[in-house]
Amino acid sequence: MRQVYLDNAATTQVLPEVVTAMLPYFTEFFGNPSSIHGYARPVKKALDQARTQVAKALNAQSDREIIFNGGGTEGDNTVLRGAALQYRKKGKHIITTSIEHHAILHTCESLEKELGVEVTYLPVDADGLVTPEQVANAIREDTILVSIMFANNEVGTIMPIAEIGRVCRERGVLFHTDAVQAVGHVPIDVQKMNIDLLSLSAHKFHGPKGVGALYVRKGVAIPPFIHGGGQERQRRAGTENVPGIVGMGAAIEIATANLEKNMAYIANLRDKLMRGIEERIPEIKLNGHRTQRLPNNVNYSIRYIEGESLLLMLDMNGVAASSGSACTSGSLDPSHVLLALGLPHEIAHGSLRMTLSELTTEDEIDYTLDILPGIVERLRSMSPLYKGGN
Amino acid sequence: MRQVYLDNAATTQVLPEVVTAMLPYFTEFFGNPSSIHGYARPVKKALDQARTQVAKALNAQSDREIIFNGGGTEGDNTVLRGAALQYRKKGKHIITTSIEHHAILHTCESLEKELGVEVTYLPVDADGLVTPEQVANAIREDTILVSIMFANNEVGTIMPIAEIGRVCRERGVLFHTDAVQAVGHVPIDVQKMNIDLLSLSAHKFHGPKGVGALYVRKGVAIPPFIHGGGQERQRRAGTENVPGIVGMGAAIEIATANLEKNMAYIANLRDKLMRGIEERIPEIKLNGHRTQRLPNNVNYSIRYIEGESLLLMLDMNGVAASSGSACTSGSLDPSHVLLALGLPHEIAHGSLRMTLSELTTEDEIDYTLDILPGIVERLRSMSPLYKGGN
Repeated sequence: MRQVYLDNAATTQVLPEVVTAMLPYFTEFFGNPSSIHGYARPVKKALDQARTQVAKALNAQSDREIIFNGGGTEGDNTVLRGAALQYRKKGKHIITTSIEHHAILHTCESLEKELGVEVTYLPVDADGLVTPEQVANAIREDTILVSIMFANNEVGTIMPIAEIGRVCRERGVLFHTDAVQAVGHVPIDVQKMNIDLLSLSAHKFHGPKGVGALYVRKGVAIPPFIHGGGQERQRRAGTENVPGIVGMGAAIEIATANLEKNMAYIANLRDKLMRGIEERIPEIKLNGHRTQRLPNNVNYSIRYIEGESLLLMLDMNGVAASSGSACTSGSLDPSHVLLALGLPHEIAHGSLRMTLSELTTEDEIDYTLDILPGIVERLRSMSPLYKGGN
Repeated sequence: MRQVYLDNAATTQVLPEVVTAMLPYFTEFFGNPSSIHGYARPVKKALDQARTQVAKALNAQSDREIIFNGGGTEGDNTVLRGAALQYRKKGKHIITTSIEHHAILHTCESLEKELGVEVTYLPVDADGLVTPEQVANAIREDTILVSIMFANNEVGTIMPIAEIGRVCRERGVLFHTDAVQAVGHVPIDVQKMNIDLLSLSAHKFHGPKGVGALYVRKGVAIPPFIHGGGQERQRRAGTENVPGIVGMGAAIEIATANLEKNMAYIANLRDKLMRGIEERIPEIKLNGHRTQRLPNNVNYSIRYIEGESLLLMLDMNGVAASSGSACTSGSLDPSHVLLALGLPHEIAHGSLRMTLSELTTEDEIDYTLDILPGIVERLRSMSPLYKGGN
């Protein structure tokens, strides 16, 4: 059967050239970079190179602003807990949004309980946006951190990060962005955007799973989250995942070099998919901002249909999509993101997310558009609520 | 030039068959295991298999007792912080030893500061041993955790884990062991040894870097260390490092299947190396217990010599060894382990650790024995303190 992968926001296929870059670091250059002998030298060099690749992709000022870690979730935990501990003399107020990834929301909850941190969860508008004014108005004397995602993982809305960054810089408050869905997908410039801290994860841009990085602007103090050895200049303990880091470096370099081209290609396919869906399927609602959105994200609420039944039918036809985020699938709760956008419970249950990549072909989009309307019609015909059709 | 790798306690070469097992999970079976479509199925299955492989190697009662994570350091952090938070109503006293890895010691320090945890650091004898009686005597009403390493990473001493486990079980105190140096190297049975929690790291037994596991006995509650998505049954957030986990599973299965054979082979080479050193080099001192030690560990203090000069000379001759642990190399402090064993500062500086694996050959040991005495003699001849020689 035909296989169409439209779940690139959940994870991506590692590029063959990324695997090729990683391979020597398993068996040939396998030394521990902290050792002081010949086996460590090529490994240290490889880490240096990957650090430069990541720093360049973000336009960081210095390679030393990059800390390698285990992924976006660890990065988010590091920043939130670290800021709460480091700046507790200044205050215990953190500002975020109601549509963050659970890596932010659940960490905030744990800090509320453990450390008495107070968190303001900014509401978003119907498109999933917060405004810089909302952020400005929420900043208090005791605000120690603003953490707002670069782009939402479910609905793809891109936040006004540069403007929020400016507000935070003007008010002297640290600004973190969970950019897990954005890095490698849209242009990012930590300097121009006044970003102090940024989390990223390699497997979202065709790098390997289990590795990520945290950008920490020079001068910003975030204590280690994982304690132990002196790796990463005392900022993240544990033997470095060398092959993973090398793969992340290769993947981010490839993604950045092809960014404009990939964005145009993917957005074109995305627009075709959206047009096709909107022309052929009635009673649907686009979730997320129509233009201020990730080039690869399509997300619709499809009335009278359970998201899960739709996914199963698509899967039976070889199309891999999702409903909400991968991290919460398996749970029967409606998406907290769609609820925050103001969707009623019954509609928040019935969303379909399809996320593309540069490996997606036009043919695959055509195939998806061929089968999707029929599946929707069949499911609706079984729904007691659906009056449409004939 | 000849290359001899004798730093297997720092990290190991990934076995080719482990890499082969991992490869399909980068490009072919790349799905997110949390997704609910066809791309997730083979990936979920692979995680299940790896979980069984790890559980079997430890003789865990159930696969569900295994939590995949980013490595031994993360596991140690998870247990210490988790126990401190989970059991703070019972108490805030933790017992450990003065020769633990920094992943334990530095985490303890952070918990002392952050949460007011009280830590008893048990002293060790000249061989690096603590006794079950020491543990029993240190247990208080408010003791919530005993954490004692299975085997020391520098000097290779194996602690009386089963006996300590029995004491802890009898007294109703949780027992954790950092078994990073032991798993895959000596027999471990979490049930027979009354171990409640165990940290391991794949790259110490010819698996990949950046991945590990935590054994948590059924019924023991340890809250998540990393908060976010619901992975690992809500116990460790973040997309699973699928290829890494598959590699860890393969590596631990291979190590366990060959354990007796490898132990005999490695210990034989190790004994040859030790005999040769003791016969040919005067004024040395074996560090660690002579018999109750890891089969692959050789560690000597070599009087009148700086460890670092020795390592450099060995490296110039193609032999990779270490002085203390890789995680602290680069630091000029003497080893906290050797100091705890009672060595004076000047001798704690001059230690040489050589750690073997099943990939080490007799020929390599012969070569090492050929060059080492001459290097020692040359360095000593330059030392103003050395009166020996002629």
